[in-house]
Amino acid sequence: MDRLATAIEKMHSPCVVGLDPRPEVIPRQVLEDVSSAESLAEAYADFSRVIIDAVSDIVPAVKPQIAMYEALGPAGISAYCRTTRYAQERGLYVIGDIKRGDIGSTAQAYAAHLSGIPGISGQGADVWHEDAVTVNPYLGIDGIRPFIEAAERNDKDIFVLCRTSNPSSAQLQDLDIKDAKEAAGTADARIVQGPATVGMYVAGLIAQWGEEHCGASGYSRVGAVVGATHIQDAAGFRSRMPHTMFLVPGYGVQGGTAADAAALFNADGTGAVINSSRGIIAAWKKDPQYSPSLTRGQALDCAAASAHRAAAAMRADIIGSLKPGSMEAHTAVSHNHQKKGS
Amino acid sequence: MDRLATAIEKMHSPCVVGLDPRPEVIPRQVLEDVSSAESLAEAYADFSRVIIDAVSDIVPAVKPQIAMYEALGPAGISAYCRTTRYAQERGLYVIGDIKRGDIGSTAQAYAAHLSGIPGISGQGADVWHEDAVTVNPYLGIDGIRPFIEAAERNDKDIFVLCRTSNPSSAQLQDLDIKDAKEAAGTADARIVQGPATVGMYVAGLIAQWGEEHCGASGYSRVGAVVGATHIQDAAGFRSRMPHTMFLVPGYGVQGGTAADAAALFNADGTGAVINSSRGIIAAWKKDPQYSPSLTRGQALDCAAASAHRAAAAMRADIIGSLKPGSMEAHTAVSHNHQKKGS
Repeated sequence: MDRLATAIEKMHSPCVVGLDPRPEVIPRQVLEDVSSAESLAEAYADFSRVIIDAVSDIVPAVKPQIAMYEALGPAGISAYCRTTRYAQERGLYVIGDIKRGDIGSTAQAYAAHLSGIPGISGQGADVWHEDAVTVNPYLGIDGIRPFIEAAERNDKDIFVLCRTSNPSSAQLQDLDIKDAKEAAGTADARIVQGPATVGMYVAGLIAQWGEEHCGASGYSRVGAVVGATHIQDAAGFRSRMPHTMFLVPGYGVQGGTAADAAALFNADGTGAVINSSRGIIAAWKKDPQYSPSLTRGQALDCAAASAHRAAAAMRADIIGSLKPGSMEAHTAVSHNHQKKGS
Repeated sequence: MDRLATAIEKMHSPCVVGLDPRPEVIPRQVLEDVSSAESLAEAYADFSRVIIDAVSDIVPAVKPQIAMYEALGPAGISAYCRTTRYAQERGLYVIGDIKRGDIGSTAQAYAAHLSGIPGISGQGADVWHEDAVTVNPYLGIDGIRPFIEAAERNDKDIFVLCRTSNPSSAQLQDLDIKDAKEAAGTADARIVQGPATVGMYVAGLIAQWGEEHCGASGYSRVGAVVGATHIQDAAGFRSRMPHTMFLVPGYGVQGGTAADAAALFNADGTGAVINSSRGIIAAWKKDPQYSPSLTRGQALDCAAASAHRAAAAMRADIIGSLKPGSMEAHTAVSHNHQKKGS
């Protein structure tokens, strides 16, 4: 996770822009000639590129949502791969939001997202161009280990779903566990401290899975997805996972505020990266400069300018909500060193 | 789920062959010219086609594992889509083992696997050629509803992960819930009966999610993945989900026996479809007819003959373990009619 932590520090920006293209968030001028999966995929790739260019000096990372591209079949997957590649070429850290989860040889196959095509060597092996991916914990460590191993071998990272931002996440993730200590078969305080829900229990597992994979930044290769919409649990998640980088969805359109997000950082202002998707890529919809009579090029320019402004505003909002001086303090001395020194 | 139930009945075969191509299960003659993602994807597509031809008169369904194809990037996804299409053309019911799970507009995008490309109409819209897909419940109903709606609109089905066959599935799925009744906010007996683990609780949710989507066969469009490796829980899962079709992994190589699998059927011998992947597609490895000196064509013929024999043996094994006469009784009168009549 060191590469991401360093990039956040360098850009003074714990923010990530979610690339979730779909017809509703793309100016209609860009969709005019669309009549097939291939042409829609081209439009997605074009739009993604414009957003990447617009925000690459404001955020250290982008999070392309593979589902949006996958909805278009093979042509969409090709557009996804061109998008991730372009983002990496622009110097961005790419979090592939793939939420995969399976077991054994199947999990190993999915881990090719990080490790490259099995049996193919050289530059052609990495078709995905992702620095990290999101994964689902429902199948236990069997589904996670192949990703951790691939991440370790290739200096990449993963983010395990812990507490998602959607309303019905409570159906499973908020279930109270009868005896977390017995369930864990361990007295490990990170797993058994206090009352435990499934989400809190998974938080303990994530801390445990990651502990051998901590980098110089003080953060592990095994990150966690923790939504900004569960403010009451923020301290519990943070204390269970002090060395875990949080990928935080739910800010903005989904209702999470900067103050909610701020509660998910460590005291030194590190340890979380806040995502916004629609709030950035669809900002053109609220831009008075936008009009249906614009040309395709003008509409894309307008989308770019709106995305740039929205990303800058988001960064200011998030930074402004962190404890005064926390990011500045951190610029001088890393989380890890602070820990060791204190 | 009626189309699958009917096909099982017609072929007297509650079996599905998993298509999980990877270099280790393909005769090396087929991989000789492989030097790129594209050529490996071609080999996967060729091998898949051969297996489909070999088993299409023995099983009603195949379950291509998208991870194996996805490991090869866009070329692999293209091979996956050609494989599913070919299987449907051969009259097989295709279960896309995709285990996707996300929320809101993202889940809707994944549901394009069942509903076709957004905004594109006509024959070109369905690029995936799947009759059902597997989905992950960790995010709650938000992640499932779009799939149910897409299934309902397109006469397709889903299988929700409930209790998977792998050892570490216990880490989450076997957690004891403190108060299932309070958690569910309902007195619904399917959810709150007896002591509840996360897996049992999810079983109740699956029954509830599916109840408005029951077909003439007596089975709902919302199926469940229940591994054959948890024999002690079989009766609990079956009683919580009487109208749920089970997709059962874990038979064969993973250690589940036909007797274990048989415990997951309803008393009339319906309600489950048992998967075998490696046991069928890699059967050539144990075939004395196979030799490294065979030509490419001979090796594929050998793989086909071995897969055919292995699938026939599996069918006989499963049918033989069901209560005597249960499949025969069922051929005459459907599960639904029996229910109504009893």
